[in-house]
Amino acid sequence: MNSPTIPSPVVPRAPPVLVPADTPDSPTYLPSCSWVTPVLTDMYQLTMTYAYWKGGRQNDNAVFDLYFRKNPFGGEFTIFAGLEECIRFVQSFRFSEKELKYLRELMPACEPEFFDYLASLDCSGLSIYAIAEGTVVFPRVPLLRIEGPLAIGQLLETTLLNLTNFSSLICTNAARLRIAAGADKKLLEFGLRRAQGPDGAMTASRFAYMGGFDGTSNVAAGMYFGISPKGTHAHSYVSAHVKLDDLKSRMLKVNPKNVPEGFKVGDERNIVTLAVQYKAELGYSIASLGELAAFCSYAMAFPDSFLALVDTYDTLQSGVPNFICVALALLQCGYAPNGIRLDSGDLAYLSKESRRMLIEADKKYNTNLQACVIVASNDINEAVLLALNDQSHSIDTFGIGTNLVTCQAQPALGMVYKLVEINNEPRIKLSQEAAKITIPGRKDAYRLVGSEGVPILDLIIRKGESPPVIKRRVLCRHPFEEKKRAFVTPTFVIPLLRVVWRGKNAKSFDGEVFEQSATNMRAPFPSLSQLRDFVGSQLALMREDHVRLMNPTPYKVSVTTDLFHYINDMMMKELPIAELE
Amino acid sequence: MNSPTIPSPVVPRAPPVLVPADTPDSPTYLPSCSWVTPVLTDMYQLTMTYAYWKGGRQNDNAVFDLYFRKNPFGGEFTIFAGLEECIRFVQSFRFSEKELKYLRELMPACEPEFFDYLASLDCSGLSIYAIAEGTVVFPRVPLLRIEGPLAIGQLLETTLLNLTNFSSLICTNAARLRIAAGADKKLLEFGLRRAQGPDGAMTASRFAYMGGFDGTSNVAAGMYFGISPKGTHAHSYVSAHVKLDDLKSRMLKVNPKNVPEGFKVGDERNIVTLAVQYKAELGYSIASLGELAAFCSYAMAFPDSFLALVDTYDTLQSGVPNFICVALALLQCGYAPNGIRLDSGDLAYLSKESRRMLIEADKKYNTNLQACVIVASNDINEAVLLALNDQSHSIDTFGIGTNLVTCQAQPALGMVYKLVEINNEPRIKLSQEAAKITIPGRKDAYRLVGSEGVPILDLIIRKGESPPVIKRRVLCRHPFEEKKRAFVTPTFVIPLLRVVWRGKNAKSFDGEVFEQSATNMRAPFPSLSQLRDFVGSQLALMREDHVRLMNPTPYKVSVTTDLFHYINDMMMKELPIAELE
Repeated sequence: MNSPTIPSPVVPRAPPVLVPADTPDSPTYLPSCSWVTPVLTDMYQLTMTYAYWKGGRQNDNAVFDLYFRKNPFGGEFTIFAGLEECIRFVQSFRFSEKELKYLRELMPACEPEFFDYLASLDCSGLSIYAIAEGTVVFPRVPLLRIEGPLAIGQLLETTLLNLTNFSSLICTNAARLRIAAGADKKLLEFGLRRAQGPDGAMTASRFAYMGGFDGTSNVAAGMYFGISPKGTHAHSYVSAHVKLDDLKSRMLKVNPKNVPEGFKVGDERNIVTLAVQYKAELGYSIASLGELAAFCSYAMAFPDSFLALVDTYDTLQSGVPNFICVALALLQCGYAPNGIRLDSGDLAYLSKESRRMLIEADKKYNTNLQACVIVASNDINEAVLLALNDQSHSIDTFGIGTNLVTCQAQPALGMVYKLVEINNEPRIKLSQEAAKITIPGRKDAYRLVGSEGVPILDLIIRKGESPPVIKRRVLCRHPFEEKKRAFVTPTFVIPLLRVVWRGKNAKSFDGEVFEQSATNMRAPFPSLSQLRDFVGSQLALMREDHVRLMNPTPYKVSVTTDLFHYINDMMMKELPIAELE
Repeated sequence: MNSPTIPSPVVPRAPPVLVPADTPDSPTYLPSCSWVTPVLTDMYQLTMTYAYWKGGRQNDNAVFDLYFRKNPFGGEFTIFAGLEECIRFVQSFRFSEKELKYLRELMPACEPEFFDYLASLDCSGLSIYAIAEGTVVFPRVPLLRIEGPLAIGQLLETTLLNLTNFSSLICTNAARLRIAAGADKKLLEFGLRRAQGPDGAMTASRFAYMGGFDGTSNVAAGMYFGISPKGTHAHSYVSAHVKLDDLKSRMLKVNPKNVPEGFKVGDERNIVTLAVQYKAELGYSIASLGELAAFCSYAMAFPDSFLALVDTYDTLQSGVPNFICVALALLQCGYAPNGIRLDSGDLAYLSKESRRMLIEADKKYNTNLQACVIVASNDINEAVLLALNDQSHSIDTFGIGTNLVTCQAQPALGMVYKLVEINNEPRIKLSQEAAKITIPGRKDAYRLVGSEGVPILDLIIRKGESPPVIKRRVLCRHPFEEKKRAFVTPTFVIPLLRVVWRGKNAKSFDGEVFEQSATNMRAPFPSLSQLRDFVGSQLALMREDHVRLMNPTPYKVSVTTDLFHYINDMMMKELPIAELE
């Protein structure tokens, strides 16, 4: 596949160095969205917590896995995103006085001491292991493993699911659109107005960028996430100009960095007169004068980066002709025009015709307008991009809104959070559907990689089993189907789950010695652009048939022989045998 | 249609009394989501504002309409929601110092005075007219009309669209699910974990309730919006109990309000012994003991409201039998069990079989377990509800998550915001598609209602035309198709657009005298339950064929003869005539 970045060779990553987590005074360590507090949860988490507390089981040693069962969009890969927000939530987890007051009213039948217990709760007793944010991930592999007291582990469920589901979905959607568009096109996220609320938009801007987009229209995303905000003007700007007389000023200072011949710095030229003259010379008689006025006024505001929306009245009869007139006038003032945006109609045809008109103007005036960018928007999605690739077109940049930010093709991902072990006893959630069965017990996961750096498969092992080793053959089995097996001899082995949170009171469940610390410790957060590079470099290494958009080949997620028997023995033990009459 | 509330007779509503808007110290007047500030906007709003300012046009008198073009979900109605958040945004609109600093860096080519201008901007120069939140609305009718200085009107666009699009979509989705389920079922929103981010979830909980839901699983929505949070326990609670020995306590105090015969207040009974005894008596030999332990422990925590999730192992072989044993034990202690929740499998069949088993237990023990509620969840949507209605089933309450909160069937609504007038000149946005043409000029809208209180059609008039009058025949025309006309003699006339914001510096565009005020004034916000009642009462009055889910009849949105000619003359004037070669 095409990728925006050159892949670096895969080497086993060094274990992350944890940093102190608790700096309650620093607002930067809070979740990005202010709704994210311990009460952003399902009611049943609180009723269960009460029942655990009442039964004296709140501190039982529990292990939970967070994972998903099926890749979205009919594809065979997913990008894991949202981990940083999870850790921000974990480190800020504390019921506020106001929240406790509300809960006391909400649950009047509960004993008053329960609320003292809730008030004391934080995540200092937890260890959290996670796959690195931005990793290409697959069904059933634990993305997060939470170890610690049963009640607090349970209380995190809903919020962690909320914080990973949409983030991963939008990031995956963006990565697929990047694959569809190819590495040489620019992709802009334009979805703020149609997103599922303000935070839906912010999340979409952030994780679309991580998935491979180049920019966003969303200014707040620029301010808070450092993504470059892009935009020109709307149809209303054109409609707001009725006639040339609407222009109060018409004079443009020549470009001081590129003073045209015969002028000097500080000289002004009448851009409207120039544009009107080109309009006459080029025979663009029916192009709208209101639109021409709008373009002149916009060019005077942004002479260095003039990009015009050309479909308010008629793209080829009015918009592109008016753009050419104003672009030629700008050139006369020493400025290079930037391009046009198409927002309706047959984008392939209009882009080619527009380019043809630019080339014709170049021939007449010996200019280089054909180098202008053509931006296209209007209901673009994966299928439209693929169709445009099949036709010829002349579009350089795509603006994608609704389809991207709401993930129209599949607006939800099915992350789940399952109890897999309690007090060293493995737990399983059975189901008629194999895909819905949980893999019991504490597990680790490894990516086995071939000599070219291409991932072969993921292997899940029981905690305590020996991990797979470089150059040593290992039998990898389908978790439920006995006949599906393969030997793999990996060139590289990447441990997928690394510690990302170590509470200062976290207990080891298996004798592993935790480094003692007086404070909670967490993994550092990579920057958004580091995450974006990481996504791109990994996708570039994947086998093309795993990441292609149409009918991709499933990537294998396997278990060791030991884990295979463990799962299947447990299923036999737990599943009641029906009595048929 | 079925409706949760009894309709009140339609009378023209009294004009709202505006209240002072500016109380900057009160946090309750801020937008609910902290991302909602003037930079939560598209970049092009800022570039346009600069271009307007540079051209000296920032204070031109502009009128914008916010509306949508097509009802969602293949239906013929939409519920307008999000108005309160729009007004909160309007009254808090001010660029912060931090935001201005960012914008200065982002737009280095802009003159420094521009940022002083931005710093001075607020909404005190605007008048905003809106249809009441919760109104059943239709395509092309302006939902908001914003009048005032061009630049500030333009700057509101993206944020207002974001705040109305998803709110209206989710509210409409909920109203449709209410219609599908019927008035006698309870509907619970369960979508927090799968929603498009934290605020997507909060918005969904709030506006699903407004659309006709009865409760939510989301505790934060309970706390902030007053919606009753509901929930029982998860599969993990069951999995966390391996055997009866896991129970540390087994004794339950008898119900002091309903002391069973032979006991006195303060007496305790061993609930586990009782349940195990029933298990033996009823021959439920293969029901899971871990599950029984879980149910006992949950019942001890919530003896007054015991509701059990019954599908962890096997609904009919284990879950329902275990529920019956614990329910009978609770009855022995003087408590009434609440019910069961089904979360997988064939919900119609399982609900009927479960009810049958409850009835059988009732026969044996002379109890009334059959009155227990049966809650069903698991991928429920409109089609599933309609299919369940067609089969027989025994479900009392539906929990709906993903399909509701992400609006899976159509995850975005297409609200638009168009300039319709500038300096008293009407503006039009033309398009090849009739549905995309804007209706130019300042307009008002009225709902013409028949004698039974049933809406007949909406009529849009030019501002300044005489409004329609009760009992007087008026010709109503399709906005673009000359041959589509109808005479209507309304029994009631409801003015749809009312002033909801009057900035203290707002200017009248047509000589209307505004009441002078030293402060900005806004409409009061109705409570969420008032909005919910309003939605229900209106839907109950709509003609059934307009609001039915399958193949509904379009509700007519019409214009006056004067407006019809105005639109069509303007189209002829503005549309360039193509030159074909």
